[in-house]
Amino acid sequence: MSMENVKHFLVVLSAAAAAGTVSIIFVLRWVLHFREGLAWDGGAAEFNWHPVLIVIGFVFLQGTAIIVYRLPWTWRCSKLMMKFIHAGLHLLAFILAVISMVAVFDFHNAAKIPNMYSLHSWLGLIAVILYCLQLVLGVGMYLIPFTPASWRAAFMPLHVYGGLLLFASVIAVALMGITEKLIFGLSNPKYKDSPPEAIFVNVLGLLLVLFGALILWIATRTSWKRPSEQILHTLHTDGGGEDSSKIGPSLSQLSDGTDDETSGDVRRRSNKLEDQVN
Amino acid sequence: MSMENVKHFLVVLSAAAAAGTVSIIFVLRWVLHFREGLAWDGGAAEFNWHPVLIVIGFVFLQGTAIIVYRLPWTWRCSKLMMKFIHAGLHLLAFILAVISMVAVFDFHNAAKIPNMYSLHSWLGLIAVILYCLQLVLGVGMYLIPFTPASWRAAFMPLHVYGGLLLFASVIAVALMGITEKLIFGLSNPKYKDSPPEAIFVNVLGLLLVLFGALILWIATRTSWKRPSEQILHTLHTDGGGEDSSKIGPSLSQLSDGTDDETSGDVRRRSNKLEDQVN
Repeated sequence: MSMENVKHFLVVLSAAAAAGTVSIIFVLRWVLHFREGLAWDGGAAEFNWHPVLIVIGFVFLQGTAIIVYRLPWTWRCSKLMMKFIHAGLHLLAFILAVISMVAVFDFHNAAKIPNMYSLHSWLGLIAVILYCLQLVLGVGMYLIPFTPASWRAAFMPLHVYGGLLLFASVIAVALMGITEKLIFGLSNPKYKDSPPEAIFVNVLGLLLVLFGALILWIATRTSWKRPSEQILHTLHTDGGGEDSSKIGPSLSQLSDGTDDETSGDVRRRSNKLEDQVN
Repeated sequence: MSMENVKHFLVVLSAAAAAGTVSIIFVLRWVLHFREGLAWDGGAAEFNWHPVLIVIGFVFLQGTAIIVYRLPWTWRCSKLMMKFIHAGLHLLAFILAVISMVAVFDFHNAAKIPNMYSLHSWLGLIAVILYCLQLVLGVGMYLIPFTPASWRAAFMPLHVYGGLLLFASVIAVALMGITEKLIFGLSNPKYKDSPPEAIFVNVLGLLLVLFGALILWIATRTSWKRPSEQILHTLHTDGGGEDSSKIGPSLSQLSDGTDDETSGDVRRRSNKLEDQVN
């Protein structure tokens, strides 16, 4: 990446980090200042863990996991280590999402409110189930060493598309949740009377959209991709290393979607495999 | 595109068309069967134009406009004509979105309900304003003949990203609108009691997400892109035409995002420009 390109990346990354951090501060201020605080007692304070854990886990950590390969200072780390960090952050996001759902079910059951009646709950549950599937398939494809390289390459477009779609969907579901909570939670004055809490939480919604938009921008810029392993190796050994004749895919290597594992990497493994077979 | 690839494209396109068509049928049945019907009288039947026009215009027509370059049977049409169809569908979607907003404001004012208090209304208005900006910039960049090719190429990633982000956001805002309407519109039985209308409209929400997911899949498959003008020209003239030595960008040409105007097209114009200058 050119210096200019790195600078541009860091500006967008800082904006995303700021939007994400301020979102977390906003959701904490919402439940601690405007609402009943946090507790695990079956009451409203238990429900409040739901938005807090969703914003921290399912939005912020998921967003971070998506762009973790893009951070230039991680390009010295091995690809395998970065895969573990990518998967680990997604796993943590998933666990927090599950705990946040338990909080809602506990609260509903204690207050005798039906579960799973709203579009928010339907889409939220579908998102959590598909996120789990994505996690399992991702680990099976890219962290189990004996998965064929051809499978890895074939699945990559779906892995990338599924990941970005789930991230966008989770933010959409969060916005629906905010809408529900402000309608049900505000009674005197009501949501339509625009009390300070309504304005404050609407701004939280805007921040979540901004964070999502910035993460999706970073994730879909091919020129910000982690260079393929071979190029990194060559750069580190000052251009004279073995295999330097093989450098095919460049930094700006372009592929169908935004691969975490560049199709170049997969293709190279695939070639090696064919070499072994032939 | 190979025959296999065309078949795969047609399967996904048919699924998208089905999801979109059924969504329109669902929203019509919602307002005509479960609600007050359609009228322009300041009452609830005027409000009902809002979901109907949003689903037909801002979701279905916008989605169609996005993938119109991908339809193989349009590849015989000139790029300029396809640009007019792309822009025309977006313009129609924009006009329907504006009318649908007027219906809500009329209804609110007649019923003395405040305007613009909800996150749905904030994000919806922002989406309409940015959509208008995108339309104006798109026409200025790609339909005004004397816009420099370098500007067109530089703006393309933002045009594509902005278009897909706006499409996804509009669906998210529609889901928030469905949530609001079901909470406010259902009183005895309430939304939480899951009457038939609640289930029916929740399914409409799922259909909108499915339609959006399929359109985004089609729009981000680079192998389904419209071939560059030069390749089409060569194919039509059976390979022997002028300029055949210049065929650089291939069908699977890959670029930053999913260009409507391939960067190859822009680059070629840019080269011509340089030829004229030198």
